[in-house]
Amino acid sequence: MSDKNKSLKNSAALGHIKFGGYDPETTQNIELIERRNKHFAGSMLFYHDPVHIVRGEGARLYDDKGRCYVDCYNNVQSMGHANPSIARAIADQSTVLNTHTRYLHENVIELAEEVAKTLPGDLEVCLFVCTGTEACELAMRIARVVTGNSGAVVMEGSYHGNSKLVGEMSTATYPKEKRPPYIQAVEPPNTYRGSFLEGEGDDEQLGQRYADLVDPAIEALEGNGEGLAAFVCDTIFDSQGALDAPGDYFTRVYEKVHAAGGLCIADEVQAGVCRTGTFWGFEQYDVVPDIVFTGKPFGGGYPVAAVFTTRAIADEWARSDIYFNTFGGNPVAAAAARAVIHYAKEHNILEHVSSVGEYLVSHLRQLAQKHEVIGHIQGRGLFVGVDLVRDRKTREPAAELARLIPDAMKAEGVLIGLTGPNGNCLKFRPPLVFTEEDVDITLAAFDKVLAELEYR
Amino acid sequence: MSDKNKSLKNSAALGHIKFGGYDPETTQNIELIERRNKHFAGSMLFYHDPVHIVRGEGARLYDDKGRCYVDCYNNVQSMGHANPSIARAIADQSTVLNTHTRYLHENVIELAEEVAKTLPGDLEVCLFVCTGTEACELAMRIARVVTGNSGAVVMEGSYHGNSKLVGEMSTATYPKEKRPPYIQAVEPPNTYRGSFLEGEGDDEQLGQRYADLVDPAIEALEGNGEGLAAFVCDTIFDSQGALDAPGDYFTRVYEKVHAAGGLCIADEVQAGVCRTGTFWGFEQYDVVPDIVFTGKPFGGGYPVAAVFTTRAIADEWARSDIYFNTFGGNPVAAAAARAVIHYAKEHNILEHVSSVGEYLVSHLRQLAQKHEVIGHIQGRGLFVGVDLVRDRKTREPAAELARLIPDAMKAEGVLIGLTGPNGNCLKFRPPLVFTEEDVDITLAAFDKVLAELEYR
Repeated sequence: MSDKNKSLKNSAALGHIKFGGYDPETTQNIELIERRNKHFAGSMLFYHDPVHIVRGEGARLYDDKGRCYVDCYNNVQSMGHANPSIARAIADQSTVLNTHTRYLHENVIELAEEVAKTLPGDLEVCLFVCTGTEACELAMRIARVVTGNSGAVVMEGSYHGNSKLVGEMSTATYPKEKRPPYIQAVEPPNTYRGSFLEGEGDDEQLGQRYADLVDPAIEALEGNGEGLAAFVCDTIFDSQGALDAPGDYFTRVYEKVHAAGGLCIADEVQAGVCRTGTFWGFEQYDVVPDIVFTGKPFGGGYPVAAVFTTRAIADEWARSDIYFNTFGGNPVAAAAARAVIHYAKEHNILEHVSSVGEYLVSHLRQLAQKHEVIGHIQGRGLFVGVDLVRDRKTREPAAELARLIPDAMKAEGVLIGLTGPNGNCLKFRPPLVFTEEDVDITLAAFDKVLAELEYR
Repeated sequence: MSDKNKSLKNSAALGHIKFGGYDPETTQNIELIERRNKHFAGSMLFYHDPVHIVRGEGARLYDDKGRCYVDCYNNVQSMGHANPSIARAIADQSTVLNTHTRYLHENVIELAEEVAKTLPGDLEVCLFVCTGTEACELAMRIARVVTGNSGAVVMEGSYHGNSKLVGEMSTATYPKEKRPPYIQAVEPPNTYRGSFLEGEGDDEQLGQRYADLVDPAIEALEGNGEGLAAFVCDTIFDSQGALDAPGDYFTRVYEKVHAAGGLCIADEVQAGVCRTGTFWGFEQYDVVPDIVFTGKPFGGGYPVAAVFTTRAIADEWARSDIYFNTFGGNPVAAAAARAVIHYAKEHNILEHVSSVGEYLVSHLRQLAQKHEVIGHIQGRGLFVGVDLVRDRKTREPAAELARLIPDAMKAEGVLIGLTGPNGNCLKFRPPLVFTEEDVDITLAAFDKVLAELEYR
């Protein structure tokens, strides 16, 4: 392994959070990086030779030299970079008024009415905050107040955010021996490399088998005095590789959680707002959570996030708790989030995602016939994980090869990232306005890069 | 007490967080409120008859009927409502690009360079987040990693934010018996109604006496195994009534904290960005904190916040921790924060704040000659608290009268709030572009309202 590759490996501690690591000798932007380094700390830059992006449009990003990149990574600007209608909504409202929500304003009310229409009937109460982390904090706070318990069942390898509480719920981010007793983690339903595999034995039992793993977690919380407040799960399993859970997995888990007196919380920061081909990721599994929260894509880039729950839960919670968020749901934030919902509707983004997602997967399957390293293709809509293997039989993760792909793809004009506990899953998670042409460019680059890396 | 006043009292649980409570029978905006209630929970509206604000300009807000209010409350849009240069910066950048900070972008680097110039030399490392809560979370996280301890010394009656951790650091928001052992609270240095009073005994000893209260708090943390990670204090003591600490208070406390191996964290969400007449509130006390964080006014309404620390602390922290914030310091956030700093410089906001602040205080002192209920005038720059008393000798808080003032002032065209543990401090905390004319209107209303409330 070359020194360059070694430094790449060292810096790829968490597949879903960071990859790359710049090389001071070869980067083209050393002056800017050195100005940045003077004032920054612990802050990652993507890529060996970090990109200096100055402009965006649709699913394309442009660097300072005018080079165009196909963006197969960014899920915040999911209605397209610099989307004119969202930018216009932000600009127009910013020139008129922006205050907190303790004065009446129509924007936040109209946002609540519009977003409630995207949710199952009972989920009609909205609480607006700024970020996914704040939303997860509030969701957990509501669950704790309402159940009187403090424990959470989460996935192994989960990522929910960056505060103390939400960081502890993010089992991917710290060693297992530091896990506090109120956190119990279960194995995610990875039917390609988990404890129970598709195609081995009775596939109809897979959902049940993975769901049953929740039983000892709940028992542990009941045994250690924490009690079960909530089951919290990202419905696209972003940090676990973008998994397809068995179709009955969530139904069975939700039953167990409710039977134990807990609430079911869907983390829709990744899967929400049309990403999977349904407006919310949980719709893929035909369940209705008790609490839903979202973040990143909700404001198209404006920091606005939300928690949704039922009137019964909200009223029970509000009896003994109050919550206020300075920026949450302010007139500009609400204008941005409304513009996202309007754009999605007016441009049939759900249909577009399903259609381009299918196109992406079918073309990935064609590539898989050519490249043995493609072990498994998983995910939904425009959130697709490609699990790369050294050997299709042993399914040994091709982590070293995977780590080289983002830089190599960047050289071909495509921005893409990695995910999964082994850092070996390539994550196709573009802005939702991604086109078939964008797929073609991305997969041509992937084909070329795999050919170079596999056979050198 | 009338039923109306009773309902006001019941809803004024936390002086600094909420006041008012709408009356469904008399409000003019019942249709909008009922639409709002259908989708909201536990979310306060200010005022008996909540205002429906549709437009802002400078320190003036306008309701849906075109009525103009002088804004003596809002500290987020501190460079004025709908400030055209800030709105323009947000609009221009939104139409070009908005992504995370793992690609290079000049805005966030230039913001870091510009904001570092406002800080003492060593505080050169910047970490950008979205909200004051996220900033306080990160400040505390850094302090814990660097010191290896977990405890915090905070003020009684403090407010720092709304996450689990920061909520626990906010002693104003929950009963003392629920305080976790890692939180030790000390009496704030209120020289008008605290344990040690100005004008009683040796005033030169006041700073020392209040600072000495930190000793047992540190000892408690050392005794219970938590250890001292940080002393965290809002340098304008917003939630305690907007206090003037004795001039040597912070110097003496910082010495004790450092001697015990802890870090000194200044919460500049309220006092920062020119509010007190210096760029940062801690400058009023001639100290240099180890970590500074700000929020609300930093982006002029855009959700952007920041933590500042020294290179030594940042590097020590980054050795074992990484942090990433999706929206923090993105190109639009950075453009907004830069526009705030530019506006403040170009319009000599610091001088303006000092000058109008003095004008406000001198005219409040004149009113105090007329109204016995004005017990004490405290604070700095354009953050002034007026402690209202039933009797100047006993200093009994005039809490019931105070609770009626915001609604009465609103009827006179002035928006203003309350603060302090007794809810009896009127809080003059306008946008920093507040003019002498705005002061005149505000104090004419205050004069009239006091005359009506005192003598009826």
